[in-house]
Amino acid sequence: MSKEVTIAVLGCGTVGTQVVRLLQERGSDLAARAGAPLRVNAIAVRNLETKREGFIDRALLTTDAHAAATGADVVVELIGGIEPARTLVLAALESGATVVTGNKALLAAHGPELYEAAARTGSDLYYEAAVAGAVPVVYAIRESLAGDRIAKILGIVNGTTNYILDEMATKGLSFEDALSTAQELGYAEADPTADVDGHDAAAKAAILSSLAFHTRVSGADVPVQGIRNITAADIAQAKADGYVIKLLAAAERVGDHYDVRVEPRLVPVGHPLASVDGAFNAVVIEAEAAGRLMFYGRGAGGAPTASAVLGDVVAAASHKVHGGNAPAELAYAELTKLPVDQVRAAVAISLELADKPGQLAAVAAKFADHGISIERVQQRAAEDSSEFTTLNITTHAAPRQALDAALADLAGVVERVKSVLTVEGSN
Amino acid sequence: MSKEVTIAVLGCGTVGTQVVRLLQERGSDLAARAGAPLRVNAIAVRNLETKREGFIDRALLTTDAHAAATGADVVVELIGGIEPARTLVLAALESGATVVTGNKALLAAHGPELYEAAARTGSDLYYEAAVAGAVPVVYAIRESLAGDRIAKILGIVNGTTNYILDEMATKGLSFEDALSTAQELGYAEADPTADVDGHDAAAKAAILSSLAFHTRVSGADVPVQGIRNITAADIAQAKADGYVIKLLAAAERVGDHYDVRVEPRLVPVGHPLASVDGAFNAVVIEAEAAGRLMFYGRGAGGAPTASAVLGDVVAAASHKVHGGNAPAELAYAELTKLPVDQVRAAVAISLELADKPGQLAAVAAKFADHGISIERVQQRAAEDSSEFTTLNITTHAAPRQALDAALADLAGVVERVKSVLTVEGSN
Repeated sequence: MSKEVTIAVLGCGTVGTQVVRLLQERGSDLAARAGAPLRVNAIAVRNLETKREGFIDRALLTTDAHAAATGADVVVELIGGIEPARTLVLAALESGATVVTGNKALLAAHGPELYEAAARTGSDLYYEAAVAGAVPVVYAIRESLAGDRIAKILGIVNGTTNYILDEMATKGLSFEDALSTAQELGYAEADPTADVDGHDAAAKAAILSSLAFHTRVSGADVPVQGIRNITAADIAQAKADGYVIKLLAAAERVGDHYDVRVEPRLVPVGHPLASVDGAFNAVVIEAEAAGRLMFYGRGAGGAPTASAVLGDVVAAASHKVHGGNAPAELAYAELTKLPVDQVRAAVAISLELADKPGQLAAVAAKFADHGISIERVQQRAAEDSSEFTTLNITTHAAPRQALDAALADLAGVVERVKSVLTVEGSN
Repeated sequence: MSKEVTIAVLGCGTVGTQVVRLLQERGSDLAARAGAPLRVNAIAVRNLETKREGFIDRALLTTDAHAAATGADVVVELIGGIEPARTLVLAALESGATVVTGNKALLAAHGPELYEAAARTGSDLYYEAAVAGAVPVVYAIRESLAGDRIAKILGIVNGTTNYILDEMATKGLSFEDALSTAQELGYAEADPTADVDGHDAAAKAAILSSLAFHTRVSGADVPVQGIRNITAADIAQAKADGYVIKLLAAAERVGDHYDVRVEPRLVPVGHPLASVDGAFNAVVIEAEAAGRLMFYGRGAGGAPTASAVLGDVVAAASHKVHGGNAPAELAYAELTKLPVDQVRAAVAISLELADKPGQLAAVAAKFADHGISIERVQQRAAEDSSEFTTLNITTHAAPRQALDAALADLAGVVERVKSVLTVEGSN
C-alpha cells in the first residue's frame, strides 16, 4: 500500500463532524478502497473553544484555515457561503491539493473561476455533496452518462420546500403553518429565505445544467420563483385535477439553447417525482439513449451529506495514489440561454371574477387575443356570501410572454389572479 | 488532444449496433470527454453476410473475434453467454486492453477469474450494463458509496418479470396470458426460462452483492424462486392487503454474513419499489450514512444498454489517455454466507382447508409448535359449491427453517398450501 493521503477538513459543523467520524470509523475500509491510508491532518474551525463531539481530536483543530487549506493532499471545504470559502478553495487548488466541496452557493456563483483554477493547476475539484446530498447525481451526469446526450433534468433538490408542500398537501396546512412545523423540526432554518424563495434550488439547478449541457450556467442565469404564494386552495385544486405541486429545478436543452428555471409546478400524480415526499430529494434525467432515469435519496443531513463527501474523498485519494484525474470540466457544447420570446409553458390559472353573465366570454377573448389555446375551463360556484366566482383555466403550451401579456390584460376583466402554475409534462 | 483510442466491438446484435451508432454520431462529444478520438477498428460477428444497419461499416466486420479482442485499446464484449465470451475477455485482458462488458451470466459465473486476470495484467474491467441497463447502479456502489457501508440492496432488476407481474396486477391476467402478451411485444423471449425462473435476476444479484459487500458471490450462491407459480388470486389477495408482488433481488449484510436471494415478495404499496412498473428496473440501496437511495430507469433495450456501455467506454478511454485505473475490485471484507439456520423471514401463507370446526385451531397449533408467531389471520368464506375455505396467515419474522417445518407439518391438516410469499419490510 502507498504512503498516506493527508486530508484537511475546513469547517466542523454538522457535516464536517460526520466526515471526521466516518474517516475514523471506516479507516481500514477507506484505506483499502483508496489504496492508501487517509489521515486527517487539520480541522479548520472558527472557534477553538466550541464544544465538540468526543471523537474530534482537539490537537487537529486550528483557526489558521489558510495553512490547513494549503497543507494537505485533499482539502474538504465545508464552510459554506462565498468568503472565505472561495479564497481558501483557490489557495488549495494552487497548492496542488484536490478539493472536495459541498458548497453549492460558491459553485453557482464562482464555478467557472474554480474550474479554471483546477485546470490551470492540474488539480481536481469534486462536488457531489453540493447538489442533492447523498444522491449521486453529479457522478451519474459526469461519468455514467458521459456517452449520452442529456435532454432534460427535473429535480426536487430542496428538502425543506418539499417537506412544506407535503405537509400542506397531506394535512391541509397553510404555508405559514407548514413552515412553522418545519422550523420546529429543524427542517427549515430560522431565516428560511434561501429555501422557500428557491435560491438554494437555483444554485443546484445551475450546477446540474452546467454539467449536463457543458455550459457555464450560474445561479444568476436561473429565473426563480419560490413557494411562499402557494395556498392550501392551490393544493386542493391541484389534487382535484390529478396533480401535486412540487418545487422543481427544471433544465432543458432546446436546440442550441438551454432553458433553466426553478418554480413550483403541477406534476401529474403518475409522474415518478409526484410520490417523492418528506425531506427527500429526487432528480429525473432524460437522456437520448438511456431514456428516463431517476435518482432518489436524502438530500440533506449530516450523515447523508458526509457519505457523498467521502465518496469524493475516496475518488480523490485514489487518483492521488494511482494517478489519473477527475473527469474534465468541458465547455465544448456551450449552449446559450433560450431567448425569452421562445420560452413556452402550459399553465393552470385560477381567477376570481364577478359572478355575472359574460365574464367567461370576456376572459376567453383575452386569451384568444394573444393566440393562447385553452385546454380546459372549470367554473366553481360562488360561495354563499360571495359576489365572486372562481374560474380555473388550463392552457395548452404557449409562449410565456404571451401568457404574461394575457394575464396583464385580464386586469380589467377579473377581480384578481389568484394563482398561476406551470404544468409539468405539457411543454 | 492525444492520439486515438481504438475500440473493438465483439458482437453486433441490438446493443452492439446501438453502441456503434452512438460512437459514430457522438464522435466529437465523446472525443472531448475522453480526451482522444475514439475509433472502432473491428466489429467481430459470427456471420459476415447478415443484413445490418447502413451505418455499420462492413469493412470493419470480421469473424476473427480473437484478433479483434487482442488488437484494440478497449474491447467491448456484447456476445453474451459463457463461451466464447470468457476466452475472449481473458485474451483481451492479457493483451492489456480494458474490457467493457454487459455480460451478467459471465460475471456471475466467472467474475473472480476475470477480476484476477484484470488485476494480474494491470487491465481494467467495466460492467455497468450488466446489471440494470441504463441505471448506473454499479457506478453508485463502486464510486459514490465508496466511503459508506452498504447494509441492504433490493432490486427490481428483470424487466420481463416486472412487466408480467404488472400486467397480472392491472389487468387481472393469469401468468400464462401475461407471459404471452410479453412475448408478443418482445418483452419476453420465446424461451422465457432465464427471466421468469429468476436466473437472470440471480446473476445480477450476485454481481451487486459482490460489489456491495466486497465478497465473491456467484450466481450459484443465490437461492432463486421465479414467478411461474404466482396466480391472479395471489395478486388480488396482495392488493387487498395493501401489497404488490415484485420479483426482488435481495441482498443483506447480517453481521459478518451476507444473505442474497431472488424471490417474489409482497412489497407494501408505499415502498418506493411498489410503483416501479412496466419494463423498468429500480434498485434501492440502504447505506449506513447515506440512508436509503433509489435508482430507476430502463433496464434493457438497445439504446439504454448502449448508453451504459458508452459511459464505461468513455471512462476506460479517459483512463487510457490520462492514466489511472478503474476502481479496484477489493475483497477485504470477505463476508460468508448467512448460515441457513439464521435466515429469517415474515411470510404470507394462503391455505385451503376443509370448512369444518376446529381447523383454525389445528393450524394455529402447528405454527405454535415451531415457535412461529402469527401477525394476522383472515378466513375467507367458502364459495357456494366448495367444501373448502381459504385461510390467509401472515407470520411475524421467524427462521425460514421453522417456517418450512411448520408448512410440512400442515400437510396432514390442510387440503393444500396455495402460496407462500415473503413479506418485504418485516425481516
